[in-house]
Amino acid sequence: MQAALAFFSATPSMSLPPSASPCVKARHSTTEDASTLAGAASSTSKDFPSVKWAQKTVVVPAQRRGCHLITSKIVREIGQDLSGFKCGLAHFFLQHTSASLTINENYDSDVRHDTETFLSKVVPEGVSAPWKHTLEGPDDMPAHIKSSMFGCTLTIPITNGQLNMGTWQGIWLCEHRDHATPRHIVVTLNGM
Amino acid sequence: MQAALAFFSATPSMSLPPSASPCVKARHSTTEDASTLAGAASSTSKDFPSVKWAQKTVVVPAQRRGCHLITSKIVREIGQDLSGFKCGLAHFFLQHTSASLTINENYDSDVRHDTETFLSKVVPEGVSAPWKHTLEGPDDMPAHIKSSMFGCTLTIPITNGQLNMGTWQGIWLCEHRDHATPRHIVVTLNGM
Amino acid sequence: MQAALAFFSATPSMSLPPSASPCVKARHSTTEDASTLAGAASSTSKDFPSVKWAQKTVVVPAQRRGCHLITSKIVREIGQDLSGFKCGLAHFFLQHTSASLTINENYDSDVRHDTETFLSKVVPEGVSAPWKHTLEGPDDMPAHIKSSMFGCTLTIPITNGQLNMGTWQGIWLCEHRDHATPRHIVVTLNGM
Repeated sequence: MQAALAFFSATPSMSLPPSASPCVKARHSTTEDASTLAGAASSTSKDFPSVKWAQKTVVVPAQRRGCHLITSKIVREIGQDLSGFKCGLAHFFLQHTSASLTINENYDSDVRHDTETFLSKVVPEGVSAPWKHTLEGPDDMPAHIKSSMFGCTLTIPITNGQLNMGTWQGIWLCEHRDHATPRHIVVTLNGM
Repeated sequence: MQAALAFFSATPSMSLPPSASPCVKARHSTTEDASTLAGAASSTSKDFPSVKWAQKTVVVPAQRRGCHLITSKIVREIGQDLSGFKCGLAHFFLQHTSASLTINENYDSDVRHDTETFLSKVVPEGVSAPWKHTLEGPDDMPAHIKSSMFGCTLTIPITNGQLNMGTWQGIWLCEHRDHATPRHIVVTLNGM
Repeated sequence: MQAALAFFSATPSMSLPPSASPCVKARHSTTEDASTLAGAASSTSKDFPSVKWAQKTVVVPAQRRGCHLITSKIVREIGQDLSGFKCGLAHFFLQHTSASLTINENYDSDVRHDTETFLSKVVPEGVSAPWKHTLEGPDDMPAHIKSSMFGCTLTIPITNGQLNMGTWQGIWLCEHRDHATPRHIVVTLNGM
Protein backbone atom coordinates (compact mmCIF):
# COMPACT_ATOMS: atom_id res chain seq x y z
CA MET A 1 0.00 0.00 0.00
CA GLN A 2 3.05 2.25 0.17
CA ALA A 3 4.33 4.56 -2.52
CA ALA A 4 7.75 3.87 -3.91
CA LEU A 5 10.57 5.38 -1.91
CA ALA A 6 12.13 8.54 -3.26
CA PHE A 7 15.78 8.84 -2.39
CA PHE A 8 18.01 11.78 -3.13
CA SER A 9 21.70 12.09 -2.38
CA ALA A 10 24.05 15.00 -2.89
CA THR A 11 27.56 13.66 -2.82
CA PRO A 12 30.26 16.00 -4.08
CA SER A 13 29.91 14.73 -7.61
CA MET A 14 26.45 13.18 -7.49
CA SER A 15 24.14 13.83 -10.37
CA LEU A 16 20.63 12.83 -11.28
CA PRO A 17 19.96 11.91 -14.89
CA PRO A 18 17.55 14.43 -16.46
CA SER A 19 14.77 11.86 -16.46
CA ALA A 20 15.05 10.92 -12.80
CA SER A 21 11.78 11.29 -10.96
CA PRO A 22 11.46 11.66 -7.18
CA CYS A 23 10.20 8.09 -7.03
CA VAL A 24 13.40 6.59 -8.38
CA LYS A 25 16.35 5.84 -6.17
CA ALA A 26 19.32 7.88 -7.28
CA ARG A 27 22.45 7.30 -5.28
CA HIS A 28 25.59 7.38 -7.34
CA SER A 29 29.08 6.84 -6.02
CA THR A 30 31.36 9.82 -6.26
CA THR A 31 33.93 8.16 -8.49
CA GLU A 32 31.57 6.59 -11.00
CA ASP A 33 29.78 9.83 -11.76
CA ALA A 34 32.68 12.21 -11.88
CA SER A 35 32.80 12.14 -15.66
CA THR A 36 29.08 12.70 -16.16
CA LEU A 37 28.69 15.57 -13.71
CA ALA A 38 29.74 18.46 -15.92
CA GLY A 39 27.57 17.28 -18.76
CA ALA A 40 24.53 16.75 -16.63
CA ALA A 41 25.00 20.06 -14.93
CA SER A 42 25.52 22.07 -18.06
CA SER A 43 22.66 20.52 -20.00
CA THR A 44 20.11 20.41 -17.19
CA SER A 45 21.39 22.88 -14.67
CA LYS A 46 17.92 23.73 -13.41
CA ASP A 47 17.15 20.11 -12.62
CA PHE A 48 20.43 19.47 -10.85
CA PRO A 49 19.59 18.26 -7.36
CA SER A 50 21.73 20.62 -5.36
CA VAL A 51 20.95 21.19 -1.71
CA LYS A 52 19.18 24.52 -1.36
CA TRP A 53 18.09 26.70 1.51
CA ALA A 54 15.78 29.67 1.21
CA GLN A 55 14.51 31.92 3.96
CA LYS A 56 11.97 34.70 3.88
CA THR A 57 9.74 36.60 6.27
CA VAL A 58 6.09 36.74 5.24
CA VAL A 59 3.91 39.38 6.89
CA VAL A 60 0.21 38.68 7.37
CA PRO A 61 -1.87 41.84 7.88
CA ALA A 62 -3.74 42.22 11.18
CA GLN A 63 -6.67 39.81 11.41
CA ARG A 64 -9.65 39.83 13.70
CA ARG A 65 -9.67 37.37 16.60
CA GLY A 66 -10.36 33.86 15.30
CA CYS A 67 -8.99 31.26 12.89
CA HIS A 68 -7.99 32.26 9.37
CA LEU A 69 -7.08 30.19 6.33
CA ILE A 70 -3.81 31.57 4.92
CA THR A 71 -2.71 28.83 2.51
CA SER A 72 -3.22 30.89 -0.64
CA LYS A 73 -1.45 33.89 0.85
CA ILE A 74 1.53 31.70 1.83
CA VAL A 75 1.69 29.90 -1.52
CA ARG A 76 1.52 33.24 -3.34
CA GLU A 77 4.55 34.41 -1.37
CA ILE A 78 6.72 31.30 -1.66
CA GLY A 79 5.28 29.38 -4.62
CA GLN A 80 7.98 30.40 -7.07
CA ASP A 81 10.68 29.31 -4.66
CA LEU A 82 8.88 26.08 -3.82
CA SER A 83 8.78 25.11 -7.48
CA GLY A 84 12.56 24.64 -7.44
CA PHE A 85 12.46 21.82 -4.88
CA LYS A 86 11.81 18.23 -5.94
CA CYS A 87 11.93 16.99 -2.35
CA GLY A 88 12.27 18.88 0.90
CA LEU A 89 10.65 20.51 3.89
CA ALA A 90 8.97 23.89 4.35
CA HIS A 91 9.18 25.31 7.85
CA PHE A 92 6.93 28.09 9.14
CA PHE A 93 7.71 30.00 12.32
CA LEU A 94 5.32 32.58 13.76
CA GLN A 95 7.33 35.14 15.73
CA HIS A 96 4.62 35.86 18.28
CA THR A 97 3.29 34.52 21.58
CA SER A 98 -0.40 35.45 21.29
CA ALA A 99 -1.29 33.79 17.98
CA SER A 100 -0.67 30.35 16.55
CA LEU A 101 -0.16 28.33 13.38
CA THR A 102 -1.95 25.06 12.80
CA ILE A 103 -3.09 22.80 9.98
CA ASN A 104 -6.77 22.03 9.69
CA GLU A 105 -9.76 21.90 7.37
CA ASN A 106 -9.59 24.11 4.27
CA TYR A 107 -13.19 24.15 3.03
CA ASP A 108 -15.97 24.92 5.52
CA SER A 109 -15.50 28.20 7.40
CA ASP A 110 -17.72 26.77 10.17
CA VAL A 111 -14.77 24.61 11.24
CA ARG A 112 -12.72 27.74 11.85
CA HIS A 113 -15.63 29.37 13.66
CA ASP A 114 -16.17 26.34 15.89
CA THR A 115 -12.47 26.08 16.70
CA GLU A 116 -12.48 29.68 17.94
CA THR A 117 -15.58 28.80 19.99
CA PHE A 118 -13.69 25.91 21.56
CA LEU A 119 -10.60 27.97 22.36
CA SER A 120 -12.65 30.73 23.99
CA LYS A 121 -14.48 28.13 26.05
CA VAL A 122 -11.54 26.01 27.23
CA VAL A 123 -9.36 28.95 28.31
CA PRO A 124 -11.22 31.12 30.86
CA GLU A 125 -11.38 34.85 30.19
CA GLY A 126 -12.82 37.76 32.12
CA VAL A 127 -13.21 38.73 35.75
CA SER A 128 -13.59 35.18 37.02
CA ALA A 129 -10.43 33.92 35.29
CA PRO A 130 -7.54 33.10 37.65
CA TRP A 131 -4.79 34.98 35.76
CA LYS A 132 -2.13 37.19 37.37
CA HIS A 133 -0.90 38.49 33.98
CA THR A 134 -3.70 40.95 33.11
CA LEU A 135 -1.99 44.27 32.34
CA GLU A 136 -2.68 44.09 28.60
CA GLY A 137 -6.33 43.18 28.96
CA PRO A 138 -8.51 40.14 29.63
CA ASP A 139 -7.64 38.50 26.27
CA ASP A 140 -3.87 38.69 26.83
CA MET A 141 -3.16 35.73 29.09
CA PRO A 142 -5.67 33.44 27.32
CA ALA A 143 -3.90 34.33 24.07
CA HIS A 144 -0.55 33.14 25.44
CA ILE A 145 -2.06 29.82 26.54
CA LYS A 146 -3.77 29.24 23.20
CA SER A 147 -0.47 29.98 21.44
CA SER A 148 1.18 27.06 23.24
CA MET A 149 -1.85 24.81 22.77
CA PHE A 150 -1.71 25.02 18.97
CA GLY A 151 1.94 26.04 18.64
CA CYS A 152 3.77 28.66 16.58
CA THR A 153 5.65 26.38 14.22
CA LEU A 154 4.78 24.00 11.36
CA THR A 155 6.80 21.80 9.06
CA ILE A 156 5.24 20.60 5.79
CA PRO A 157 6.82 18.23 3.26
CA ILE A 158 7.66 19.52 -0.22
CA THR A 159 7.15 17.08 -3.09
CA ASN A 160 7.66 17.99 -6.73
CA GLY A 161 7.68 21.71 -6.05
CA GLN A 162 4.53 21.86 -3.94
CA LEU A 163 3.43 21.65 -0.31
CA ASN A 164 2.40 18.00 0.06
CA MET A 165 -0.68 18.46 2.23
CA GLY A 166 -3.78 16.29 2.22
CA THR A 167 -6.82 17.18 0.12
CA TRP A 168 -8.64 18.85 2.99
CA GLN A 169 -5.69 20.44 4.76
CA GLY A 170 -4.86 24.13 4.89
CA ILE A 171 -2.62 26.42 6.91
CA TRP A 172 -4.42 28.42 9.59
CA LEU A 173 -3.25 31.52 11.38
CA CYS A 174 -5.16 31.71 14.65
CA GLU A 175 -5.32 35.21 16.07
CA HIS A 176 -5.92 35.16 19.81
CA ARG A 177 -5.92 38.91 20.54
CA ASP A 178 -8.97 41.18 20.26
CA HIS A 179 -6.93 43.97 18.71
CA ALA A 180 -4.22 42.36 16.64
CA THR A 181 -1.18 43.64 14.82
CA PRO A 182 0.41 42.27 11.64
CA ARG A 183 2.02 38.88 12.22
CA HIS A 184 5.45 37.82 10.96
CA ILE A 185 6.13 34.30 9.75
CA VAL A 186 9.71 33.21 9.00
CA VAL A 187 9.56 30.67 6.17
CA THR A 188 12.54 28.38 5.67
CA LEU A 189 12.74 26.02 2.69
CA ASN A 190 15.28 23.22 2.50
CA GLY A 191 15.63 20.43 0.02
CA MET A 192 16.92 19.40 -3.36
CA MET B 1 26.80 16.73 31.80
CA GLN B 2 26.60 17.17 28.04
CA ALA B 3 27.52 14.66 25.39
CA ALA B 4 30.26 15.60 22.99
CA LEU B 5 29.13 17.64 20.02
CA ALA B 6 28.76 15.83 16.73
CA PHE B 7 29.49 18.01 13.75
CA PHE B 8 29.07 17.10 10.11
CA SER B 9 29.86 19.20 7.10
CA ALA B 10 29.42 18.49 3.42
CA THR B 11 31.60 20.85 1.48
CA PRO B 12 32.14 19.99 -2.16
CA SER B 13 35.23 17.98 -1.38
CA MET B 14 34.67 17.22 2.28
CA SER B 15 35.34 13.71 3.42
CA LEU B 16 35.14 11.89 6.72
CA PRO B 17 37.88 9.44 7.54
CA PRO B 18 36.53 5.88 7.76
CA SER B 19 36.90 5.90 11.53
CA ALA B 20 35.03 9.15 12.13
CA SER B 21 32.23 8.76 14.62
CA PRO B 22 29.25 11.13 14.99
CA CYS B 23 30.87 12.51 18.12
CA VAL B 24 33.99 13.77 16.38
CA LYS B 25 34.13 17.13 14.70
CA ALA B 26 34.86 16.72 11.02
CA ARG B 27 35.15 19.93 9.09
CA HIS B 28 37.79 19.90 6.40
CA SER B 29 38.58 22.77 4.08
CA THR B 30 37.89 22.11 0.44
CA THR B 31 41.45 22.60 -0.71
CA GLU B 32 43.14 20.43 1.89
CA ASP B 33 41.01 17.43 1.16
CA ALA B 34 40.76 17.62 -2.59
CA SER B 35 43.45 15.02 -3.07
CA THR B 36 42.03 12.57 -0.54
CA LEU B 37 38.43 12.66 -1.73
CA ALA B 38 38.55 10.05 -4.46
CA GLY B 39 40.37 7.61 -2.26
CA ALA B 40 38.06 8.08 0.66
CA ALA B 41 35.03 7.82 -1.53
CA SER B 42 36.14 4.75 -3.38
CA SER B 43 37.28 2.87 -0.32
CA THR B 44 34.43 3.76 2.00
CA SER B 45 31.67 4.91 -0.29
CA LYS B 46 28.92 3.73 2.04
CA ASP B 47 30.28 5.75 4.95
CA PHE B 48 30.75 8.91 2.93
CA PRO B 49 28.69 11.62 4.61
CA SER B 50 26.72 12.83 1.64
CA VAL B 51 23.58 14.84 2.20
CA LYS B 52 20.58 12.60 1.56
CA TRP B 53 16.86 13.11 1.30
CA ALA B 54 14.31 10.34 1.25
CA GLN B 55 10.54 10.63 1.10
CA LYS B 56 7.86 7.99 1.34
CA THR B 57 4.16 7.76 2.12
CA VAL B 58 3.27 5.21 4.79
CA VAL B 59 -0.37 4.10 5.01
CA VAL B 60 -1.75 3.05 8.38
CA PRO B 61 -4.89 0.88 8.09
CA ALA B 62 -8.12 2.22 9.60
CA GLN B 63 -7.99 2.22 13.41
CA ARG B 64 -10.78 2.45 15.92
CA ARG B 65 -11.26 5.79 17.70
CA GLY B 66 -8.52 6.26 20.28
CA CYS B 67 -4.73 6.42 20.60
CA HIS B 68 -2.56 3.82 18.91
CA LEU B 69 1.14 3.07 19.22
CA ILE B 70 2.59 2.87 15.70
CA THR B 71 6.34 3.00 16.34
CA SER B 72 7.01 -0.57 15.20
CA LYS B 73 4.90 -0.11 12.07
CA ILE B 74 6.80 3.07 11.19
CA VAL B 75 10.22 1.60 11.88
CA ARG B 76 9.35 -1.46 9.80
CA GLU B 77 8.53 0.83 6.88
CA ILE B 78 11.52 3.16 7.07
CA GLY B 79 14.11 1.27 9.14
CA GLN B 80 16.25 0.25 6.19
CA ASP B 81 16.41 3.82 4.95
CA LEU B 82 17.06 5.18 8.44
CA SER B 83 20.09 2.94 8.78
CA GLY B 84 21.92 4.98 6.14
CA PHE B 85 21.85 8.20 8.17
CA LYS B 86 24.50 8.90 10.81
CA CYS B 87 22.88 12.19 11.78
CA GLY B 88 19.67 13.79 10.62
CA LEU B 89 15.98 14.40 11.13
CA ALA B 90 12.92 12.28 10.39
CA HIS B 91 9.76 14.23 9.66
CA PHE B 92 6.26 12.74 9.81
CA PHE B 93 3.27 14.49 8.30
CA LEU B 94 -0.26 13.14 8.68
CA GLN B 95 -2.33 14.26 5.70
CA HIS B 96 -5.62 14.49 7.59
CA THR B 97 -7.58 16.93 9.75
CA SER B 98 -9.46 14.54 12.02
CA ALA B 99 -6.58 12.52 13.46
CA SER B 100 -3.24 13.45 14.98
CA LEU B 101 0.34 12.38 15.56
CA THR B 102 1.99 12.73 18.94
CA ILE B 103 4.83 11.25 20.97
CA ASN B 104 3.98 9.71 24.31
CA GLU B 105 4.41 6.65 26.54
CA ASN B 106 5.22 3.38 24.77
CA TYR B 107 4.56 0.76 27.44
CA ASP B 108 1.27 0.90 29.36
CA SER B 109 -1.81 0.88 27.14
CA ASP B 110 -3.73 2.56 29.98
CA VAL B 111 -1.93 5.79 29.10
CA ARG B 112 -3.40 5.67 25.61
CA HIS B 113 -6.83 4.80 27.03
CA ASP B 114 -6.71 7.68 29.52
CA THR B 115 -5.58 10.14 26.86
CA GLU B 116 -8.62 9.27 24.75
CA THR B 117 -10.76 9.73 27.88
CA PHE B 118 -9.28 13.21 28.33
CA LEU B 119 -9.80 14.23 24.71
CA SER B 120 -13.44 13.10 24.75
CA LYS B 121 -13.98 15.03 27.96
CA VAL B 122 -12.27 18.31 27.07
CA VAL B 123 -13.91 18.68 23.63
CA PRO B 124 -17.72 18.60 23.96
CA GLU B 125 -19.61 16.19 21.72
CA GLY B 126 -23.30 15.48 21.21
CA VAL B 127 -26.51 17.49 21.23
CA SER B 128 -25.35 19.98 23.84
CA ALA B 129 -22.12 20.81 21.98
CA PRO B 130 -22.02 24.30 20.40
CA TRP B 131 -20.76 23.29 16.95
CA LYS B 132 -22.11 24.62 13.65
CA HIS B 133 -20.12 22.07 11.60
CA THR B 134 -22.17 18.91 12.19
CA LEU B 135 -22.99 17.51 8.75
CA GLU B 136 -20.63 14.56 9.08
CA GLY B 137 -21.83 13.55 12.53
CA PRO B 138 -21.27 14.51 16.16
CA ASP B 139 -17.67 13.26 16.21
CA ASP B 140 -16.61 15.37 13.19
CA MET B 141 -16.04 18.83 14.66
CA PRO B 142 -14.49 17.48 17.88
CA ALA B 143 -12.10 15.47 15.68
CA HIS B 144 -10.92 18.64 13.91
CA ILE B 145 -10.25 20.37 17.23
CA LYS B 146 -8.33 17.42 18.65
CA SER B 147 -6.25 17.32 15.47
CA SER B 148 -5.01 20.86 16.12
CA MET B 149 -4.55 20.21 19.85
CA PHE B 150 -2.04 17.38 19.29
CA GLY B 151 -0.96 18.35 15.78
CA CYS B 152 -0.42 16.42 12.56
CA THR B 153 3.35 16.69 12.30
CA LEU B 154 6.37 15.36 14.21
CA THR B 155 10.12 15.74 13.78
CA ILE B 156 12.42 13.21 15.47
CA PRO B 157 16.23 13.27 15.49
CA ILE B 158 18.14 10.48 13.74
CA THR B 159 21.36 9.35 15.40
CA ASN B 160 23.49 6.48 14.13
CA GLY B 161 20.75 5.15 11.87
CA GLN B 162 17.94 5.13 14.42
CA LEU B 163 15.17 7.38 15.72
CA ASN B 164 16.72 8.96 18.83
CA MET B 165 13.70 8.88 21.11
CA GLY B 166 13.77 8.48 24.89
CA THR B 167 13.40 5.07 26.52
CA TRP B 168 9.69 5.48 27.15
CA GLN B 169 8.73 7.39 24.02
CA GLY B 170 6.72 6.05 21.12
CA ILE B 171 4.88 7.45 18.11
CA TRP B 172 1.11 7.56 18.51
CA LEU B 173 -1.53 7.89 15.83
CA CYS B 174 -4.64 9.29 17.50
CA GLU B 175 -7.80 8.53 15.58
CA HIS B 176 -10.55 11.00 16.39
CA ARG B 177 -13.34 9.68 14.14
CA ASP B 178 -15.78 6.91 15.10
CA HIS B 179 -15.61 5.36 11.64
CA ALA B 180 -12.11 5.91 10.35
CA THR B 181 -10.42 5.38 7.03
CA PRO B 182 -6.76 4.48 6.37
CA ARG B 183 -4.42 7.33 7.25
CA HIS B 184 -1.52 8.56 5.10
CA ILE B 185 1.74 9.74 6.66
CA VAL B 186 4.38 11.42 4.46
CA VAL B 187 7.78 10.54 5.91
CA THR B 188 10.75 12.70 4.95
CA LEU B 189 14.28 11.78 6.00
CA ASN B 190 17.15 14.24 5.73
CA GLY B 191 20.70 13.97 6.98
CA MET B 192 24.12 12.61 6.31
CA MET C 1 6.03 44.25 3.25
CA GLN C 2 8.22 41.16 2.80
CA ALA C 3 11.92 40.93 3.42
CA ALA C 4 14.11 40.01 0.49
CA LEU C 5 14.39 36.32 -0.15
CA ALA C 6 17.57 34.63 0.97
CA PHE C 7 18.52 31.72 -1.22
CA PHE C 8 21.40 29.36 -0.64
CA SER C 9 22.50 26.50 -2.82
CA ALA C 10 25.24 23.96 -2.31
CA THR C 11 25.98 22.41 -5.66
CA PRO C 12 29.21 20.47 -5.90
CA SER C 13 31.08 23.53 -7.01
CA MET C 14 28.84 26.31 -5.76
CA SER C 15 30.48 29.18 -3.97
CA LEU C 16 29.34 32.38 -2.34
CA PRO C 17 31.49 35.47 -2.82
CA PRO C 18 32.96 36.61 0.50
CA SER C 19 30.61 39.57 0.58
CA ALA C 20 27.42 37.61 0.00
CA SER C 21 24.79 38.27 2.63
CA PRO C 22 21.87 35.96 3.44
CA CYS C 23 19.57 38.38 1.66
CA VAL C 24 21.25 38.02 -1.71
CA LYS C 25 20.36 35.24 -4.08
CA ALA C 26 23.37 33.07 -4.72
CA ARG C 27 22.78 30.27 -7.14
CA HIS C 28 25.68 29.55 -9.43
CA SER C 29 25.78 26.86 -12.06
CA THR C 30 28.31 24.16 -11.44
CA THR C 31 30.30 24.78 -14.60
CA GLU C 32 30.57 28.56 -14.36
CA ASP C 33 32.01 28.50 -10.88
CA ALA C 34 34.37 25.60 -11.19
CA SER C 35 37.34 27.85 -11.66
CA THR C 36 36.53 30.18 -8.78
CA LEU C 37 35.79 27.52 -6.20
CA ALA C 38 39.29 26.80 -4.99
CA GLY C 39 40.07 30.47 -4.63
CA ALA C 40 36.91 31.25 -2.73
CA ALA C 41 37.38 28.29 -0.48
CA SER C 42 41.00 28.94 0.29
CA SER C 43 40.61 32.64 0.92
CA THR C 44 37.38 32.51 2.90
CA SER C 45 37.09 28.93 4.02
CA LYS C 46 35.08 29.84 7.12
CA ASP C 47 32.44 31.65 5.11
CA PHE C 48 32.01 28.90 2.55
CA PRO C 49 28.36 27.87 2.63
CA SER C 50 28.79 24.15 3.12
CA VAL C 51 25.89 22.09 4.38
CA LYS C 52 26.46 21.28 8.04
CA TRP C 53 24.80 19.11 10.62
CA ALA C 54 25.50 19.23 14.34
CA GLN C 55 23.87 17.19 17.08
CA LYS C 56 24.21 17.41 20.83
CA THR C 57 22.31 16.36 23.92
CA VAL C 58 21.69 19.15 26.43
CA VAL C 59 20.75 18.16 29.98
CA VAL C 60 18.53 20.49 31.99
CA PRO C 61 18.76 19.87 35.77
CA ALA C 62 15.60 18.78 37.59
CA GLN C 63 13.08 21.62 37.82
CA ARG C 64 10.09 22.02 40.07
CA ARG C 65 6.64 21.47 38.52
CA GLY C 66 5.74 24.42 36.30
CA CYS C 67 6.97 26.35 33.28
CA HIS C 68 10.60 27.41 33.04
CA LEU C 69 12.37 29.76 30.64
CA ILE C 70 15.47 27.96 29.32
CA THR C 71 16.50 30.13 26.37
CA SER C 72 19.73 31.37 27.94
CA LYS C 73 20.70 27.87 29.07
CA ILE C 74 20.12 26.54 25.54
CA VAL C 75 21.96 29.39 23.84
CA ARG C 76 24.88 28.97 26.23
CA GLU C 77 25.14 25.32 25.20
CA ILE C 78 24.80 25.72 21.43
CA GLY C 79 25.61 29.38 20.76
CA GLN C 80 29.12 28.75 19.47
CA ASP C 81 27.84 26.14 17.02
CA LEU C 82 24.91 28.33 15.96
CA SER C 83 27.28 31.12 15.01
CA GLY C 84 28.57 29.04 12.10
CA PHE C 85 25.19 28.90 10.33
CA LYS C 86 24.07 31.72 8.05
CA CYS C 87 20.73 30.04 7.37
CA GLY C 88 19.23 26.89 8.79
CA LEU C 89 17.00 25.23 11.35
CA ALA C 90 17.54 24.29 14.99
CA HIS C 91 15.55 21.30 16.20
CA PHE C 92 14.92 20.50 19.85
CA PHE C 93 13.65 17.14 21.01
CA LEU C 94 12.77 16.42 24.63
CA GLN C 95 13.26 12.70 25.29
CA HIS C 96 10.49 12.43 27.89
CA THR C 97 6.73 11.87 28.09
CA SER C 98 5.88 13.83 31.25
CA ALA C 99 7.32 17.24 30.35
CA SER C 100 7.08 19.46 27.28
CA LEU C 101 8.83 22.09 25.20
CA THR C 102 6.99 25.17 23.97
CA ILE C 103 7.68 28.72 22.85
CA ASN C 104 6.03 31.52 24.75
CA GLU C 105 6.57 34.87 26.48
CA ASN C 106 10.10 35.58 27.74
CA TYR C 107 9.62 38.52 30.09
CA ASP C 108 6.88 38.31 32.74
CA SER C 109 7.14 35.25 34.98
CA ASP C 110 3.40 35.59 35.67
CA VAL C 111 2.76 34.19 32.17
CA ARG C 112 4.59 31.01 33.12
CA HIS C 113 2.75 30.87 36.45
CA ASP C 114 -0.65 31.32 34.79
CA THR C 115 0.13 28.69 32.16
CA GLU C 116 0.84 26.15 34.91
CA THR C 117 -2.46 27.21 36.55
CA PHE C 118 -4.27 26.50 33.28
CA LEU C 119 -2.67 23.10 32.76
CA SER C 120 -3.49 21.99 36.31
CA LYS C 121 -7.06 23.13 35.80
CA VAL C 122 -7.77 21.65 32.37
CA VAL C 123 -6.35 18.20 33.14
CA PRO C 124 -8.08 16.68 36.19
CA GLU C 125 -5.88 15.35 38.99
CA GLY C 126 -6.61 13.60 42.27
CA VAL C 127 -9.16 11.11 43.54
CA SER C 128 -11.98 12.31 41.29
CA ALA C 129 -9.90 12.07 38.10
CA PRO C 130 -10.94 9.25 35.74
CA TRP C 131 -7.46 7.80 35.09
CA LYS C 132 -6.58 4.10 35.04
CA HIS C 133 -2.83 4.79 34.88
CA THR C 134 -2.13 5.82 38.49
CA LEU C 135 0.72 3.61 39.70
CA GLU C 136 3.28 6.44 39.72
CA GLY C 137 1.06 8.91 41.57
CA PRO C 138 -1.77 11.34 40.84
CA ASP C 139 0.45 13.67 38.80
CA ASP C 140 1.64 10.93 36.42
CA MET C 141 -1.23 10.56 33.97
CA PRO C 142 -1.95 14.32 33.84
CA ALA C 143 1.75 14.81 33.02
CA HIS C 144 1.48 12.51 30.01
CA ILE C 145 -1.54 14.39 28.69
CA LYS C 146 0.10 17.79 29.13
CA SER C 147 3.17 16.49 27.30
CA SER C 148 1.07 15.81 24.20
CA MET C 149 -0.87 19.08 24.56
CA PHE C 150 2.27 21.23 24.30
CA GLY C 151 4.50 18.69 22.55
CA CYS C 152 8.08 17.56 23.05
CA THR C 153 9.62 19.00 19.90
CA LEU C 154 10.39 22.47 18.52
CA THR C 155 12.00 23.74 15.34
CA ILE C 156 13.34 27.31 15.24
CA PRO C 157 14.86 29.09 12.22
CA ILE C 158 18.52 30.08 12.30
CA THR C 159 19.41 33.38 10.63
CA ASN C 160 22.90 34.88 10.64
CA GLY C 161 24.12 32.60 13.40
CA GLN C 162 21.25 33.14 15.83
CA LEU C 163 17.86 31.67 16.72
CA ASN C 164 15.44 33.87 14.78
CA MET C 165 12.69 34.18 17.39
CA GLY C 166 10.42 37.17 17.90
CA THR C 167 11.24 39.86 20.43
CA TRP C 168 9.04 38.38 23.13
CA GLN C 169 9.59 34.70 22.45
CA GLY C 170 11.55 32.30 24.60
CA ILE C 171 11.97 28.53 24.92
CA TRP C 172 10.08 27.00 27.82
CA LEU C 173 10.62 23.64 29.46
CA CYS C 174 7.35 22.71 31.15
CA GLU C 175 7.83 20.20 33.94
CA HIS C 176 4.63 18.27 34.64
CA ARG C 177 5.83 15.96 37.44
CA ASP C 178 5.87 16.88 41.13
CA HIS C 179 9.23 15.21 41.66
CA ALA C 180 11.18 15.63 38.49
CA THR C 181 14.48 14.26 37.21
CA PRO C 182 16.97 15.95 34.86
CA ARG C 183 15.58 16.27 31.33
CA HIS C 184 17.48 15.48 28.14
CA ILE C 185 17.03 17.56 24.99
CA VAL C 186 18.58 16.37 21.71
CA VAL C 187 19.53 19.46 19.71
CA THR C 188 20.07 19.08 15.96
CA LEU C 189 21.37 21.97 13.85
CA ASN C 190 21.23 21.91 10.07
CA GLY C 191 22.01 24.62 7.58
CA MET C 192 24.70 26.43 5.67
